[in-house]
Amino acid sequence: MDTRARMLGATEESLRETGMAGTGIKEIVARSGAPIGSVYHHFPGGKTQIVTESLQNHSAKALRLLQTFFDGKRPPAKAVKMLFDNAAKEFEKAGSMKGCAIGSVALDLTREDFEIREICQASFESWIELIATQVPRSLAQTIVVALEGAFVLGKALKSGDPFRAAGKWLAATLEAQERRR
Amino acid sequence: MDTRARMLGATEESLRETGMAGTGIKEIVARSGAPIGSVYHHFPGGKTQIVTESLQNHSAKALRLLQTFFDGKRPPAKAVKMLFDNAAKEFEKAGSMKGCAIGSVALDLTREDFEIREICQASFESWIELIATQVPRSLAQTIVVALEGAFVLGKALKSGDPFRAAGKWLAATLEAQERRR
Repeated sequence: MDTRARMLGATEESLRETGMAGTGIKEIVARSGAPIGSVYHHFPGGKTQIVTESLQNHSAKALRLLQTFFDGKRPPAKAVKMLFDNAAKEFEKAGSMKGCAIGSVALDLTREDFEIREICQASFESWIELIATQVPRSLAQTIVVALEGAFVLGKALKSGDPFRAAGKWLAATLEAQERRR
Repeated sequence: MDTRARMLGATEESLRETGMAGTGIKEIVARSGAPIGSVYHHFPGGKTQIVTESLQNHSAKALRLLQTFFDGKRPPAKAVKMLFDNAAKEFEKAGSMKGCAIGSVALDLTREDFEIREICQASFESWIELIATQVPRSLAQTIVVALEGAFVLGKALKSGDPFRAAGKWLAATLEAQERRR
């Protein structure tokens, strides 16, 4: 992997673990092993640019993951259950310490972080859009809301259970919704 | 209000707006108007102590607010709908920029923030406990998950709609649950 990609990967990991709070140029350099002089060579826009690009990478990866569940090959209730159970497992496998980079950054945004806020907004909208091809839009939004909230509680409780609980109840809601059609 | 209370209030506001990322001693001093020398006089434990105490205050306030909805005087479906609609309104009134202090901090926690993580855990557990007096525990957990997730999406989308969407679907889930009893 080249230096630029390594730095973006290190930023993404740092954002997932500690949001903007623990993500500075020094941390990115330390995690990636890149020489500090290379930061502004690869990212002339500094921290804003490197954060923006890693969030875009993270968002695209999350969208591809969502697509594997919401590919239309199974009822939405089943897709939601699989998504949340899978998230619980992955979350615990990583030590119950890694959140979603987009969510972690969203809660740290200041009024001045226009560009970064727009990336967060576009990410969430693209995920909602995808899920809304199969369920009512407000329910698609609720699924993304629950996914983000599960990272919050999961990190505090050091457990994947908040994902499992939310997945179970959202699946029940979707099943009731499917029966009523 | 005395200096100590003013500093705690300033910390709480800062945590709600930007999590740990924007909350340092300098910011707390600037927001509270307290002399910088008074920080370690009132909080010998420094940032960890002041953050811990403001989170405890925030958590207790949130619990009291939850109690006004889940007071047993209305069906849980109605309580949830009111809670989320009220949260949407308050969130928008504050410029769609203020999250939950506990949630914002949870996503910024490092492995070393033992004490602060325990406050986050105890907060979420006390809220779940309260709601679980009226609904199944995993559903109570899902309600708190959705509340926290709505702050995440609300901040990114600059809108209270994620609260309204989640409140609507959780109420539908609870109604279905009540019918099945």
